[in-house]
Amino acid sequence: MASFAARARFAPLALAALCGCAAPAPPARAPRAVADVLAATSPSDWEVLDASNLFVMDLPRGRVVIELARAFAPAHVANLEALARQAYFDGLAVVRVQDNYVTQWGDPLAEEPGAKPLGGARRELPAEFVAKGALPFTALPDPDTYAPEAGFSGGFPVARDPSRGEAWIPHCYGVVGAGRNEAPATSNGAELYVVIGQAPRHLDRNMTMVGRVIAGIEHLSSLPRGTGALGFYKTPEERTPIARARIASDLPEAERPKLERLRTDTRAFRAYVEARRSRREPFFVEPLGRLDVCNLQLPVRPATPR
Amino acid sequence: MASFAARARFAPLALAALCGCAAPAPPARAPRAVADVLAATSPSDWEVLDASNLFVMDLPRGRVVIELARAFAPAHVANLEALARQAYFDGLAVVRVQDNYVTQWGDPLAEEPGAKPLGGARRELPAEFVAKGALPFTALPDPDTYAPEAGFSGGFPVARDPSRGEAWIPHCYGVVGAGRNEAPATSNGAELYVVIGQAPRHLDRNMTMVGRVIAGIEHLSSLPRGTGALGFYKTPEERTPIARARIASDLPEAERPKLERLRTDTRAFRAYVEARRSRREPFFVEPLGRLDVCNLQLPVRPATPR
Repeated sequence: MASFAARARFAPLALAALCGCAAPAPPARAPRAVADVLAATSPSDWEVLDASNLFVMDLPRGRVVIELARAFAPAHVANLEALARQAYFDGLAVVRVQDNYVTQWGDPLAEEPGAKPLGGARRELPAEFVAKGALPFTALPDPDTYAPEAGFSGGFPVARDPSRGEAWIPHCYGVVGAGRNEAPATSNGAELYVVIGQAPRHLDRNMTMVGRVIAGIEHLSSLPRGTGALGFYKTPEERTPIARARIASDLPEAERPKLERLRTDTRAFRAYVEARRSRREPFFVEPLGRLDVCNLQLPVRPATPR
Repeated sequence: MASFAARARFAPLALAALCGCAAPAPPARAPRAVADVLAATSPSDWEVLDASNLFVMDLPRGRVVIELARAFAPAHVANLEALARQAYFDGLAVVRVQDNYVTQWGDPLAEEPGAKPLGGARRELPAEFVAKGALPFTALPDPDTYAPEAGFSGGFPVARDPSRGEAWIPHCYGVVGAGRNEAPATSNGAELYVVIGQAPRHLDRNMTMVGRVIAGIEHLSSLPRGTGALGFYKTPEERTPIARARIASDLPEAERPKLERLRTDTRAFRAYVEARRSRREPFFVEPLGRLDVCNLQLPVRPATPR
C-alpha cells in the first residue's frame, strides 16, 4: 500500500485542514513544505472561532459545524439565528444530494401544505449576493477564471471586482448557500445547500452565501446520491433526518465546538499560500507555482489552550 | 420544495451529463440555454464509445465505466488492459476515500507479502505525465489558473503549454490517475484513483492520467470516508470489494455499456461551451461569461440507435 500519497510526507488538503500540527522541526530538504509552514505558526496566527458565529447541525452520522458569513449576508445570518433558536431545523431533513454539485437540506414540505411554520423568522429577505464596501482582503497572486481578483477575508474565500466595488464568496467546496426560487429575493435561510464537488462558480453572484462548513462535511458529502431529478430523493425513507441545529453559543458550554482557524491576515497565511502554490514535498516532480482560490481549504484545528 | 434548482429549467451539470435529451423546441425567452443546445444536436455530434476503450468495474452498488486516455498514457492503458484480462482487479478493493480529494483502489497488500501477482503485466512503466506532439484540441476562451491554455481533446479535458509542446489531462472531478511512489516512474496502473472533489490541480503534470469516469462515479464518490491517515480505511471490513473489472470489449456483447459522448471537435460543442459560459436560464440573474475547464463535464448519454 505504498503508492500515491500513502506517504506521510505528501500531506493533502484534508489532512492539513484538521491536523494536530505538533510537528517536528522541518527537514532541510523541504524547507517550506505545507506541514512545515503550519508547524512554524504561533498561537496568534490562529483565531479561536466564536461560538456565536457557528451553526451546528447534528446528523445521525455526526456533527456538521458551519462558520457563518455575517459580513457577507447579515440579514440571512440573522434569520438563520432566529430559525435555529426556535428549533426550526430539528426534525427536517437532507432532501437532495446531487453528485459533484450540492447537498441540500430543509423542509421536505416547504411551500406546500403542512410546511413547518417559519415562526418569528422572516419569510423573504433581500438578496445578499455581493458585499459592497471595504472588507479585509488578502489577495492570491494567480489569475482567477471567474473574477478579477480572488483571495481570502476572515474565514472565507472571496472573489472581488474592484471596478464595481463588490466582493462575494465563490462557490468553493464546503461553502454554504441559501436556496431560492427563480426570483432573486426569495431565499430566507430555511433551505440551505453545501457544495460537494468541483466549485460550481456559475452560481457566483447569483446566490446568497451564508457560511462555510469547517467540520464534519463528510456527513453531507458522502450521503447516497438522490436518483430523482437534480438529485432529489424520491422517497422520504432516503432522506437523512436532522436531529438538531443550533447556534453554538445557545448550546451548553460543554457541547460547543472548540475550534480555531488560521487567520488570513497574517504572514503565516501568506507563507501557507506559497507552500501550497509551489509544493516542496519530495513527491512533487514539478511544483506548479499556481493556486486557485477554491484549492485552498483554510486550516482548522482543535483550539489550543491559551 | 421549490427553492434552488428544484426547477427543471435550472439544469445543473450532472443532469446535462446523462440526459435523454429528447427535448421540446427551445422557448424564445432562453434561446441558447444548455438544454436547448443539447436538444439541437444531431447524431453526428455524438461519438459512440468504443468498447475496447472502456474499463468497466463492477462494485456492490453498481457499475463504474471509465473511458481510457490512450493518447495520453499508451503504456499505462496497455498495462491496464493486461491487468484486466488476467482478472487482476477481481477481489481487490477500494482502500481509500479522502473527502474532497480522491477515492483509490487496488491491492490492499500491494508491495507487501501476499500481494496479488501482476502476472503478465509490467511492474514499472515510464512516467506518462504529459503528452508531446499534436493532438486534437478545442480551446476554451477563458484564462486558466494553472496552465497557459485549457480545453478539450477527444473525451478529455486538456491543459496545454505551447512553449513546451506539452499537453496533459488536468485533475478534474472524475478523472482517473495511476498511483505511484515517490519516484516518478513507479506507477503501473494496478493502483488507481479518481478525483472526487475540487480539482487538485497541484497534481497536474505530476501523475499519469489514464482515463475519466463517464458513468457510475457516484459508486466511488459517495463511499464512507476513511478515518485513517490520508483517508485510508483502518480496517479491511470498511473496504468496498471489486467484484470484477474488465475491458468492455472482453465482456459478452449484452453486458457492454452502450454510451455516446458529445464530440469536442464540433460546432455543437462550441455552442455547448457558450451555453455553459453564459447561462441563459431564467434562474440566473447574472450570466458570468466564464468557464473553467473542470466545470464542463462532457455530456454522455445512452447510445442512440443509428
